This record gives sequence, C-alpha cells and structure tokens, in this order.
Amino acid sequence: MTEGFAFSVRHTCGRARCGAISTPHGSVKTPAFMPVGTRAAVKGLTPAQVEDTNTQIVLANTYHLMLRPGAETVAQAGGLHAFMAWDRPILTDSGGFQVFSLADLRQIDDNGVAFRSHIDGAPVKLTPESSIEVQNLLGADIIMAFDECPPLPTQADTLRTAVRRTVAWARRCRAAHRRADQALYGIVQCGLDVGLRRECLEQLLETGFDGYALGGLSVGEPPLEMRAFLDEFAHELPADQPRYLMGVGTPADLVAAVASGIDQFDCVLPTRNGRKAYAYTSAGILRLRNARHRAAREPLDPACGCYTCRRFSRAYLRHLFMSGEVLGATLVSLHNITFYQSLMRQMRAALEAGTFATWRETFSASPACRPHEEDE
Amino acid sequence: MTEGFAFSVRHTCGRARCGAISTPHGSVKTPAFMPVGTRAAVKGLTPAQVEDTNTQIVLANTYHLMLRPGAETVAQAGGLHAFMAWDRPILTDSGGFQVFSLADLRQIDDNGVAFRSHIDGAPVKLTPESSIEVQNLLGADIIMAFDECPPLPTQADTLRTAVRRTVAWARRCRAAHRRADQALYGIVQCGLDVGLRRECLEQLLETGFDGYALGGLSVGEPPLEMRAFLDEFAHELPADQPRYLMGVGTPADLVAAVASGIDQFDCVLPTRNGRKAYAYTSAGILRLRNARHRAAREPLDPACGCYTCRRFSRAYLRHLFMSGEVLGATLVSLHNITFYQSLMRQMRAALEAGTFATWRETFSASPACRPHEEDE
Repeated sequence: MTEGFAFSVRHTCGRARCGAISTPHGSVKTPAFMPVGTRAAVKGLTPAQVEDTNTQIVLANTYHLMLRPGAETVAQAGGLHAFMAWDRPILTDSGGFQVFSLADLRQIDDNGVAFRSHIDGAPVKLTPESSIEVQNLLGADIIMAFDECPPLPTQADTLRTAVRRTVAWARRCRAAHRRADQALYGIVQCGLDVGLRRECLEQLLETGFDGYALGGLSVGEPPLEMRAFLDEFAHELPADQPRYLMGVGTPADLVAAVASGIDQFDCVLPTRNGRKAYAYTSAGILRLRNARHRAAREPLDPACGCYTCRRFSRAYLRHLFMSGEVLGATLVSLHNITFYQSLMRQMRAALEAGTFATWRETFSASPACRPHEEDE
Repeated sequence: MTEGFAFSVRHTCGRARCGAISTPHGSVKTPAFMPVGTRAAVKGLTPAQVEDTNTQIVLANTYHLMLRPGAETVAQAGGLHAFMAWDRPILTDSGGFQVFSLADLRQIDDNGVAFRSHIDGAPVKLTPESSIEVQNLLGADIIMAFDECPPLPTQADTLRTAVRRTVAWARRCRAAHRRADQALYGIVQCGLDVGLRRECLEQLLETGFDGYALGGLSVGEPPLEMRAFLDEFAHELPADQPRYLMGVGTPADLVAAVASGIDQFDCVLPTRNGRKAYAYTSAGILRLRNARHRAAREPLDPACGCYTCRRFSRAYLRHLFMSGEVLGATLVSLHNITFYQSLMRQMRAALEAGTFATWRETFSASPACRPHEEDE
C-alpha cells in the first residue's frame, strides 16, 4: 500500500469513468488534465495563476530537474512542492521520454541510457534506479517508472526490445523505490500493436503498480490511429486503478480517450499554443496574430470566466503578441489551461449525470473541434 | 481648470513634501513612483499583479503606442484604461524622449520631428499638435507636452535651441489640447544650467500648465551632478502644482529628489533589473545568477510582504533565471516594483510624521543604497 494514495471510480458511462485519486497533497477528480511544468514552472504562470485555471495537479520533468538545478538542490529546498510553491499534487515523469527526445549521443543498453546533457554536453547516465532516486528526492505525489520510448513508426524488433527493457526496468524501479508516500505508476509501451501492449501490460501487472500509463503515443502516428488503438486497448488496463495517457493531446483527443476509459492526461499544447498566440475557444482555435482581431473588443471566449476573458479584449492580446510583450503568452496560456480544465469538468459532470454519450456527440459537432483559423 | 484634476500639499519637511493628486481615475498619494508600461503593459505583469505592488499610477508611451497598435485602435477600444485593463490613473509621455532615443534618421525643425519608425522604417512625423492629438485619443489622466530632449553632455547652443523649441512647442501643445478631463504638464528642459532652466520655466509659466516636469535628466550626466542640480532648482517649480522628475531613478536618486521637492517619478529600473535577475532588497541589490544563491531557502527580502517574497526562495528564483523561465522576470519585477512602492510609502509616512530628515539619514546609511553585489 502506498500511504495516502487511493483511487475510486464513482460513475461509468460505457468505458468512460469519473472518479478521484487521493494523494498526500489532496484529491484529484478524474478525468484530470495536468498542465506541464517542465522545469518546476508552468511556463509564464505563477502557481496562483495556475490555481486560478482550476488545475488540480501539475507535471514536472525528472530529466530537466536532475540536470538543473539538480535533485539534491530541490530536496534541500524541502522537495518540489516547497521549491515551486505548489501545494497541490504533482506528478514527475521518469525522464525516459526526454532522454529519447532531447538528449544527444544516446547509448542505450539493458542497464540504462548514457547521454550528453542538452544544456552543457556533460555526460549523464540514467538508469531505472537513478530515475527513481531522483524522483524520490523531488518528492512528487506520483512518480513514473523509467521506460524506453522509441518514436513511431519504427521496426518491429525495436518495439520488441523496448517492451522487454521497459518491463525489466519497471521491475527494477519498483525495487528501487524508497518512499511509501509516493505512488509509482508503470508505463505500458509501445507502438500501436495491441498484442505487444498486452504482453507488456501483463508483465507489469506481475510486478504491480499504483496506476498504469500508456506511453509512446502521440509520438508521430496519425491521431485517428491512436484513437482506434485506445478504443481497442485502454479498457484492458486495470479498472480499479488510474489510467494515464502520457503527452496527449488536443481537446478532441482528450474526449476520445476519456470515452476509451482514460483518467489522466498531460500535454504542453495549451501553454505552447498560448505562447504562439493560439487560443482555444468554444468557437474554435483563434490565431491572434491575424489582422481580423486588430480592433476586436470581445474577449477570447465570451463563455469563459478566466481572468484573461474577464478583463482583456482580443485587440489588446493581439497587440501584446505583435509587440513582443510576454504578457500575451501569460494571458493566453492562462486562458488555454482554463479551457482545458473546463473541458475536463464538463466531461466529469456529464459522466456523473450519465449524459456523457450525448455530451460527446454535441462536443464533436461543435466548432471547438475545428482546426485553428487559417493564417493570413 | 482641468476637470477632476487637483493637487494639494499636506505636509512639508524642508523642501520635501507629501500630498495628493486627484485625477478622474482616482487619487495618487505623492511622492509617487510610476512603473513604466511602455507598450500598454508593465513588462511581464498583469494589471492585477501591478495593483498588488501598491502602484497607484502607471506610465505608457505615446511614441510606441502611436506606431503600434495606433492611437485610433486604442481609442476604439475605449481608451488606454479599457485597452490595458488598468482602472487607476495613467500618464502618457509625449513621445519626445523616445523620438530622440529610439527613432532613426531624425530630422528636427521648428515644426516638429520627422523620423523613421524603429519597427518597420516607415516615415513618421511627430509635432506638438500630433503628439497631443495622439494623447487625446489614448485618454490618459495626465499627458505631457512634446519637448526636445538632447542627450547630455552637449553644446551650449544645442541646449539653447532645445529650450526655445520646447517652450514654443509647449505653447502649441496647450493650444492643441482638446480634452478637459486630461491634465497637461509642461516639461522644463534641459541640461544642468540653472539659468537656462529658469528661463525655460518662466516662459512655460506664462502659458500655464497643470504640473511641471523636469526632462532631460538622467540622460548621461553623473548622478551627483543631477542631485546637486535638483537641490538648486527643483524648489523653483510652482509649489502648488505637481513636480515630476522624468526617467529617474535609483532608490537613492528618488530619496534625494524627494528631499529637493519632487512629487512624481517614472523609471524602468525595477522592471529592467527584474528581467536581468537583479533584486532590490533592504540588504542591497542581489544578483540572483550568483552561485551563492543556489541553495538559498530565504526569500529575496524577509522584510518584504510581496507575493514573490511570501512564496518563493532565492534558490527557486535563481533556478528560473538559469533555466530561462520568464516566470523569474515576472516574480522579480513584481518584487522590485513592490520595493520601490514601499520606499515611496516610507517617505510619505516620514513626511506626514515630520521625521523625513531622520528617516533619510537612516536610509542613506543602510545597505539598500549599496551598489549591487558583484558578479561571480
């Protein structure tokens, strides 16, 4: 048993479900979206602003934090919650995905990964044991097993090797984990082959984890293939434990994944798009740099109650981006995360009310699912 | 009479005084510091965060806003207060200083200044009439006469020409001003020659303005020369009207200028230094990039009650700067403006209590006046 950690499903609707994860830093209603605070900060937002978006839990990155400022520094500061002044739950990923997407000169063997830091080129090694040691020092409520995450599409034998290593590494992570107050999730790898995923899951179940994540998705494959895979496989993850789809996705992806039975998500889209002047709204994605917003007095989304929509016009937000004022990125990121959290809340409410199927149909037909407006 | 505008001195202590400026958007206790919102945004801060620093009034720049987004756009948005969502008083400068410091290929004659936009090289002309027209459209509570501002040191005849033009332009500004709800300040130019300044002031007084500013200081001359000049001249500005020292300065500059009889200030230092990881504290200026702050758990200034000091350690703020996270600039700018506003409040309190002279001695001997800590 992990101290202070529990998961309960309260309502289901087909394969979709809503419930709650208890953690030492409070409860998280599911399905839940986790904004990304890569370097112990959700880009451009204070923790108070992140709280204002109705965010329940954030994600931070083991890979980045072990390189800078270093896990010992964070531990000396009283752990990640104290360091970044975020009192609500935190999840750290294992560094696996970043090692495979950011680091240079990787050398992978069964022991782990040797690479060069993307900051200063210094040689670093990450193993299941060291990933867990770092995550124990960081002190998040939920930590992740160290996995191998090859980009898609790839060769069948690469996938097979990745699955074998991911399972072996997960077992070593479980053995290395030293803190009873941190839940440890296993990561099911990889690709869109249900047989291989099933094999991976079965072996992870033998070890036993507090939750199960799907890794290696949204890494190059077409969205519709990902959704078809989720429909086929997500419900095979244990029903009484949290199911976490890593690094996903668009609003439409989230709705499809919830329908397949997923409970947790993280994604950089709302903040990354916020920095690029793209705003999610109930009428579709706005591109604020477009000249049509030059004198627009209306807020980003009249249906939204966030600080940005209560106080600022599209014209002003456009002006900030055109002038290179970082406040634009802050205000639109704040709005975009609020939009995502509002979407999650709508899904939870529909699941509680037993109306998720109807809600989903209405959502899928709405302009919120359209691609963003064209560049001018 | 300018509608809704008034100034009263409540207490004096030598030449220093405290009082209040009434404006259509509320009252400003003086001496007052105005953070700079060049492009209708105090860099990196939301209006709510600026309010949290106890800022009473902000400055915005006519030059920048006329080029982008354009005065008409701001007027269509309901004016600058609505556009930037700042309900408290605003002052706009005339564009004079920016034309002389930023624009390319200036051609100055008695009519005005022709230049090329620093944004796209487009030819633009700024005259006393067009500066006031733009400021009437922007709608700030206090607007400034268009002046010529040569950098120091310079030739005597350049200064003399600048004074002649500044006086003539101020008269044309007064005549062009169309809004009874905006106070118009005259600007006394230029240099450190008291005789020339006196001549300029006398001619401005013939026209008559709602307040008087000292321009052309802190533009290259040594700080001690500026302070000596202020000691000799500031008290000659009308005693029953606000006295505004433009573009100044360090905490020690502000204290010296208040002692000379100045009521209003604007300066980019707290935000510019905030972006560069320099933090003003009661123990002196910290350079957060220094390695000594790597594991420092204390706040920037234990004596400060701002959000940054209540929630974050120096170690975390240093981490944000070392990682290139813009949140660092936001948090330290927020702290630095709070520090400046706290300094102004201390001066107002000492003036009200009749203890300004003692307060000033204590402040001048304190570490807050030291140069910033050395780079490592």
